[in-house]
Amino acid sequence: MTLETVSEVKSHGGVQGVYRHASAATTTDMVFSLFLPPQPERGEPVPLLWYLSGLTCTHANVTEKGEFREACARAGIAFIAPDTSPRGPDVPDDPEGLWDFGQGAGFYLDATQQPWATHFNMRRYILDELPALVAQHFPADMTRQSITGHSMGGHGALTLALSSPGRFRSVSAFAPIVAPRQVPWGRKALRHYLGEGDAVWRAHDTVALIEDGARVDELLVDIGEADPFLEKELRPELLEDACADAGIPLTLRRQAGYDHSYYFISTFMADHVGWHAERLNR
Amino acid sequence: MTLETVSEVKSHGGVQGVYRHASAATTTDMVFSLFLPPQPERGEPVPLLWYLSGLTCTHANVTEKGEFREACARAGIAFIAPDTSPRGPDVPDDPEGLWDFGQGAGFYLDATQQPWATHFNMRRYILDELPALVAQHFPADMTRQSITGHSMGGHGALTLALSSPGRFRSVSAFAPIVAPRQVPWGRKALRHYLGEGDAVWRAHDTVALIEDGARVDELLVDIGEADPFLEKELRPELLEDACADAGIPLTLRRQAGYDHSYYFISTFMADHVGWHAERLNR
Repeated sequence: MTLETVSEVKSHGGVQGVYRHASAATTTDMVFSLFLPPQPERGEPVPLLWYLSGLTCTHANVTEKGEFREACARAGIAFIAPDTSPRGPDVPDDPEGLWDFGQGAGFYLDATQQPWATHFNMRRYILDELPALVAQHFPADMTRQSITGHSMGGHGALTLALSSPGRFRSVSAFAPIVAPRQVPWGRKALRHYLGEGDAVWRAHDTVALIEDGARVDELLVDIGEADPFLEKELRPELLEDACADAGIPLTLRRQAGYDHSYYFISTFMADHVGWHAERLNR
Repeated sequence: MTLETVSEVKSHGGVQGVYRHASAATTTDMVFSLFLPPQPERGEPVPLLWYLSGLTCTHANVTEKGEFREACARAGIAFIAPDTSPRGPDVPDDPEGLWDFGQGAGFYLDATQQPWATHFNMRRYILDELPALVAQHFPADMTRQSITGHSMGGHGALTLALSSPGRFRSVSAFAPIVAPRQVPWGRKALRHYLGEGDAVWRAHDTVALIEDGARVDELLVDIGEADPFLEKELRPELLEDACADAGIPLTLRRQAGYDHSYYFISTFMADHVGWHAERLNR
C-alpha cells in the first residue's frame, strides 16, 4: 500500500509525521498523523498508542493541541491519530447541515445503510486497513497496541477495544460518549448509519457491550465537571453502573472545573500516555 | 482600563484566558492571552513571562501549540502572549500583499512614518500599556518579569530587554531575528516603519544595540539547524560575535534537525520556562 508523506517535522526528539493514502475501506483518500519517538533510530520497534478524535476533528486537532509528544518520547511510544470520517465532495454529509453527523462524525463503525455504507467504514479502517499500513511503513510493534480517544473518539476507543478482545493491551478515554443508544448525538448517528434496531445498535454502545458480556481488564476515564455535554451526551454514570455490575475496574476521574476542550485533554494527556506505557512496556 | 473576557478555560490546574481591550497605543482593539497558574488561588502574586510571537501569528499560535502551561503551572509563573500588530480594516497592510510586513508583523517598535505611525506602536503597547492593564486586572508581580519570543518575537524580546535596563529579570529567544538591519525581513520593516537612517535603525537591532553598549546579564537562545530561515534572516553567528565582543554570556543551542515551527518551539519551551523560573524565583 502506498503512503504519501504530507509532512515530517522533528519534535521532542522524534518525528511528527502527517501521511495520506488511498483507503479501500472508505473509498476516499485518508490522512492521519503519526509521532515516532526517538527510540526507533536505535532499531527497536515501539508500541503504538491510538488516539481517536471527537466530532468535527481531523488528525490535526490532537496533533497540534494534544501535548502528547513529550510523554510519548519519554516512554518510547508511537502515537497515531486518524481522521474521524471519510471526507470529500463525493462523500455524503449531514442532511440537517449540522456538525454532529456525517463528515467529521464517523462514529468508528461500518455503516450498513445507504448513502453512508459506501464510505463510512471507520471501524474496519481503524482495526484492519490502517494497522496494516502502519506495520508496513513504520517501526511499530503491532503486538503492543493501546487505544484512547476523546468524546466520539472515546466511544470509538471503548467500543473497538470491547469488541476486539486481546487486540489492545489497555484502553482509556477523555470525556467519552458511553451510551450512544441513549443520547442525541449517538441516536442520530446509529439511526442513519445502521438503521433502526436495538440489537444492531448494542454492538456499538459501550454500556450495552458491557451489559452483553464484553470485557476489558480495566478502564481509565477522565471527565471534566464543567463539560457542557456531560449530562446530555456523555452520561458517565451509565458507565460507572455498567462497570460496577460487570466487575470491570474503572478509574473515573471527575476533574473539577474542566470543560470538553483540548485545554482539558492536554492537561491529562501525559497521565494517559504514562498509564498506557506501563501496560505496554510490561 | 476596561478588559473584556473573550474566554477563560481551566487547563493544567490554572486558567487560560483570552482578553480584548481598546488600545490607546494602537488605536485599535487588541487581543492577548494570559495563563494564570494555580498559585494565585492562594493569594500570592506570581511572576510574569512575556512571549512575543513571530510573523503572521496572533496570541493564538503559542496559546494552542506552545506547550507552556504544564511548565508554567509547575513553576508558578503567569504567561502572557500579545498579538504581533494592530489589525483591522482601517489598519494599513503590506503594499506588496505579502505576510512579512504590516498586519501580523509589527516588529515591536513604534513607527514614525505614515501611514504606519497611527497604529503600529507595539513597543509602547508591550512596555507600557499592556503591563498597566495586567497589573490592574491580574495577580501578577510586576517587579518580576521576564521575556522570550520567537523569530520576529525573539527580535522583540531581545531589543525590548536590551533597551529597557532592569525591566526584565531574564531574556531568551527561539530562532530570533538578531540583526534586522542586515536581513530582508528586517530591512523591509525598518524602512517602512522608521524611514531610512541607520542611526534610527540601530536602536531596534539586537546586534547593533549590543555593539552600542546595551547589556543584559546573559542570554539563552535556541536555533533549529533545519530552520529554512537560518542563513538569510536569522544569522545567529552575528549574535555570537556581538555577545563575545561584549562579554555577554550567551547559551546558543543549535538543535540538530529542528525547523522554525511550533514543533521546534514546543520541544524546548519547558527548558525556557524553567530557565526563566530560576531567575524569577531567586
